[in-house]
Amino acid sequence: MELYPGTKFGVGPVIENGFFYDLDLPKPISPQDLSKIEKRMRQIIARNEEFVREEMPLDAAIEFFKKMDQQYKVELLTDLKTKGTTKIKPEEQQDISIEKPNIASVYRTGKFVDLCRGPHVGTTKDVGVFKLTKISGAYWRGSEKNKQLTRVYGLAFKTQEELDAYLILLDEAEKRDHRKLGAELELFMISPRVGMGLPLYLPNGAFIRRKMEELVAGLEEEQGDQYVYTPHIARKGLYETSGHWQHYRDTMYSPIDIEGEEYILRPMNCPHHIQIYAHRPRSYRDLPLRLAEFGTVYRFEKSGELFGLTRVRGFTQNDAHIFCSPEQIKKEVASLLDLTKKVYAAFGIKDVWMRLSLRDPKDTVKYVADSNKMWERAEGALREALDSKKAKYVTAVGEAAFYGPKIDFEAKDALGREFTISTIQLDFSLPEKFDLEYTGDDGAKHRPVIIHRAPLGSIERFLAFLIEHYAGAFPVWLAPVQASVIPVGKDHWKAAARLEKMLRKEGIRAVANLERDTVGYKIRAAERMKVPYMLVVGDKEKSLKKLTVRVRGVKALKAMTVSSFVSRLRKEIARRG
Amino acid sequence: MELYPGTKFGVGPVIENGFFYDLDLPKPISPQDLSKIEKRMRQIIARNEEFVREEMPLDAAIEFFKKMDQQYKVELLTDLKTKGTTKIKPEEQQDISIEKPNIASVYRTGKFVDLCRGPHVGTTKDVGVFKLTKISGAYWRGSEKNKQLTRVYGLAFKTQEELDAYLILLDEAEKRDHRKLGAELELFMISPRVGMGLPLYLPNGAFIRRKMEELVAGLEEEQGDQYVYTPHIARKGLYETSGHWQHYRDTMYSPIDIEGEEYILRPMNCPHHIQIYAHRPRSYRDLPLRLAEFGTVYRFEKSGELFGLTRVRGFTQNDAHIFCSPEQIKKEVASLLDLTKKVYAAFGIKDVWMRLSLRDPKDTVKYVADSNKMWERAEGALREALDSKKAKYVTAVGEAAFYGPKIDFEAKDALGREFTISTIQLDFSLPEKFDLEYTGDDGAKHRPVIIHRAPLGSIERFLAFLIEHYAGAFPVWLAPVQASVIPVGKDHWKAAARLEKMLRKEGIRAVANLERDTVGYKIRAAERMKVPYMLVVGDKEKSLKKLTVRVRGVKALKAMTVSSFVSRLRKEIARRG
Repeated sequence: MELYPGTKFGVGPVIENGFFYDLDLPKPISPQDLSKIEKRMRQIIARNEEFVREEMPLDAAIEFFKKMDQQYKVELLTDLKTKGTTKIKPEEQQDISIEKPNIASVYRTGKFVDLCRGPHVGTTKDVGVFKLTKISGAYWRGSEKNKQLTRVYGLAFKTQEELDAYLILLDEAEKRDHRKLGAELELFMISPRVGMGLPLYLPNGAFIRRKMEELVAGLEEEQGDQYVYTPHIARKGLYETSGHWQHYRDTMYSPIDIEGEEYILRPMNCPHHIQIYAHRPRSYRDLPLRLAEFGTVYRFEKSGELFGLTRVRGFTQNDAHIFCSPEQIKKEVASLLDLTKKVYAAFGIKDVWMRLSLRDPKDTVKYVADSNKMWERAEGALREALDSKKAKYVTAVGEAAFYGPKIDFEAKDALGREFTISTIQLDFSLPEKFDLEYTGDDGAKHRPVIIHRAPLGSIERFLAFLIEHYAGAFPVWLAPVQASVIPVGKDHWKAAARLEKMLRKEGIRAVANLERDTVGYKIRAAERMKVPYMLVVGDKEKSLKKLTVRVRGVKALKAMTVSSFVSRLRKEIARRG
Repeated sequence: MELYPGTKFGVGPVIENGFFYDLDLPKPISPQDLSKIEKRMRQIIARNEEFVREEMPLDAAIEFFKKMDQQYKVELLTDLKTKGTTKIKPEEQQDISIEKPNIASVYRTGKFVDLCRGPHVGTTKDVGVFKLTKISGAYWRGSEKNKQLTRVYGLAFKTQEELDAYLILLDEAEKRDHRKLGAELELFMISPRVGMGLPLYLPNGAFIRRKMEELVAGLEEEQGDQYVYTPHIARKGLYETSGHWQHYRDTMYSPIDIEGEEYILRPMNCPHHIQIYAHRPRSYRDLPLRLAEFGTVYRFEKSGELFGLTRVRGFTQNDAHIFCSPEQIKKEVASLLDLTKKVYAAFGIKDVWMRLSLRDPKDTVKYVADSNKMWERAEGALREALDSKKAKYVTAVGEAAFYGPKIDFEAKDALGREFTISTIQLDFSLPEKFDLEYTGDDGAKHRPVIIHRAPLGSIERFLAFLIEHYAGAFPVWLAPVQASVIPVGKDHWKAAARLEKMLRKEGIRAVANLERDTVGYKIRAAERMKVPYMLVVGDKEKSLKKLTVRVRGVKALKAMTVSSFVSRLRKEIARRG
């Protein structure tokens, strides 16, 4: 306001680790202006000005801000008066609500007066450390029909140490950004001609995906999962029966007409697996039936919300559906807890905890299978399974889906960022909707329960997690190229090619770089691609009796024989190091 | 005509191994009537009536058949007169063409006179052995708008021996029908709720598919293919650029609307792979770039034409696109010939021959890349590659696609039925359409060639072939269950379970049948599922020192130790026996 007189203020909420403010500035500013603004903010803080709370009737507040020429505040207050809310959509972050009817609270600091629910710190001196980080465009109230304002972002912490630590984290996170590394390491691409939000896996990324899939499928099969393949489309009626068409239509694509029938690009794999369950009469001998698939699904996301591999329009779930009797829930869930633990351990994710979401016992009508006994038994089975495995978990009452209780798996990545990886979800609803049955030991018909589970969640999201977790330096077992063989000169090409062949025969993914580039260039290329090992072949190494091994991230070179190098790699691969 | 006076004759062409005739009968007949018709046919043959050829001017012929009250013949002749053809669509099988302008030839046999180009045998005595096999409905001239006629099918051979051999073959083919075995062995299913022509792989079929994919991917990677994953939809513009939208629209599904953009369920994987090629500048160092994918595509087929796994609406191609320089064609094709041979050998298909399809040198304008040099060089490269591998091939001049020459692979299955498995197709057109380039050794821009190839063709069609080829008795390496462990009584359950565990530890897919059924029932169940080995565990085998092994298809039992059984299976698996 002091630097750019005439500035109109939009909204300025607190966000994680900081804040932003949307401003209608008399002239455009650039990121270079942020330090000037920061300087003035420091001067204001030094003035030690008090924050004074005032309460005004809404009408008086509207008049007040009109006089101040703050049209956005006037609009918010007018909405508050007429609609009782400033929100346009219910999910909107920003809400200037009021505590007392028809009374607005404002805070005054020197000449600056802002609408705020409060509370505020006492004086500007109480403000901790802060830093303005970036500016971006933001439409007033999020609508493209309104004017675009300038959004200034800032960070705020109590101490400089905390701010510094966070800045380092940000910097590290930026370096690890899976979109950036995805392009640099040639893992995946987005093609505007194919469509936004539809990633294409390049050979390196596809290789890692396949290794991920092999690992998980192997562990799943050990515990009795059976893999299936099902098509990516189905008749609309299938999703009407499942209820997806009625309840999740916003995320489903428009139907395809085939000979007058409507077909849908599937948003879920469950109805397909249910068809497999239901294709013949089932008896208790068939249960548990565990059907798994790397099932690609397509769900609508707005183009503005697409983001790398984490918000996409098509993704592959490591999906399984376990059809079992209510008595089998506990054993199945216990075995799923083991499986999940093994999967995460393989990817070096050690710190995993769980959240058990139960129904709200005071509000049972909103849940299906309204027999209390069923819910109680199932919730008991989940709890017993967790306890039997001595799992770390918190309980969230009222957080269950309407169709059954669930367990979420939460983990931290290498930067300590939290991440929900996957869910074990009980489902009493779909068996009902599809009228699934099995003949029990007693000769009578019973209804099975479905357990939905996907240890990796979506392959795309998990790969994004792994890229950032490993900062692109994939462990040897996952690395598309495990060893780059680098001849010093043309005289060493033959030896390099021979070494490549020897290593490949041992199952090591070695690639000899036989381009006409310098050694330095080749080493940098291998470093850029984060290849775990570089084997430089010069005069000394030409006989291949001793190799000079450069370990990724380590400057020092090691001398070792081919066989000791191979056995080192084998060990690393075996322990997935 | 004699049995059902008033019968009107439609068309009656020769087909493979026999014939049919479409009849407008005064009253419906059933398959039971066929023997009555056969009997009368034999009487007519015994009469030794002559076939007499006559030529009539078209107008006279029309008058003649009008008098005979044969309206269908009149219609055909009228079309011949006015349109010069009796075909409705150019691809129609049946064509009563004429040799001389405005002259129709007819054949007279007793009272029966038929329109026919000829030639005919001399007298009815010259007719060999025949058998009427079935009746079906058939619309006159294939159009649902016309009357439905009765189609009577028959087989015809020179000798009884040939007919008998063919009937045995038919019977065997019916037993091997992949739809029948697919259901019995629980390999796949079609769900009307998911949609016709959209097979779902059940666990057994999915297992075999994965083994097939692993085998091929392994062999492909050995020769340098790099796997990718790409989405099943793309913006319509991609297929407009490729030309698919203009030329193959009949086989493509209606667009899906996403935020006002049209997206298409992909009918081909090539445009996606081309996007990967084009995502960054390419140099000669990148070539050949071999991109492979198990790419699922969706193509329209009329519901009436759907058939098991061979005519479907969605299928997965074992697809690869090799982007190379014109100089690299020969080496790449030679290596593809090796690959293809290895793949087919793995599935026990030994008798493979090839067809080299070249352009018609007299009609070069209908082909792209109309530089003669390009075509000559490419055709020469294919020929040299075939010759260098001493391949068996025939040359088909004029059979090339408009966008490049190709090699087709033809094989015979266990019943001697011929089958086109796959194609190596050169493509000069797509690189042009997508303006693909690479920087050559000379620093200049060049256009790459694309080689399309898919050793298995479509996974679905190849699986159908394998099911019929093996008659469902999959070799040990492909069998979902390799050994069924069958305890004689409840006393032997423990030993059976222990044996299952021992074998599983050795990597053998053994399953102990611990149901409360009789031994006989369990043996029949394993036989029905065509499990290669049955291990019956009774008192004698309880210690697991000696096993009693029942080999699939062999009545005699063999005694062997667990370790000799394991090593027998290992050997069989290694040679894919």
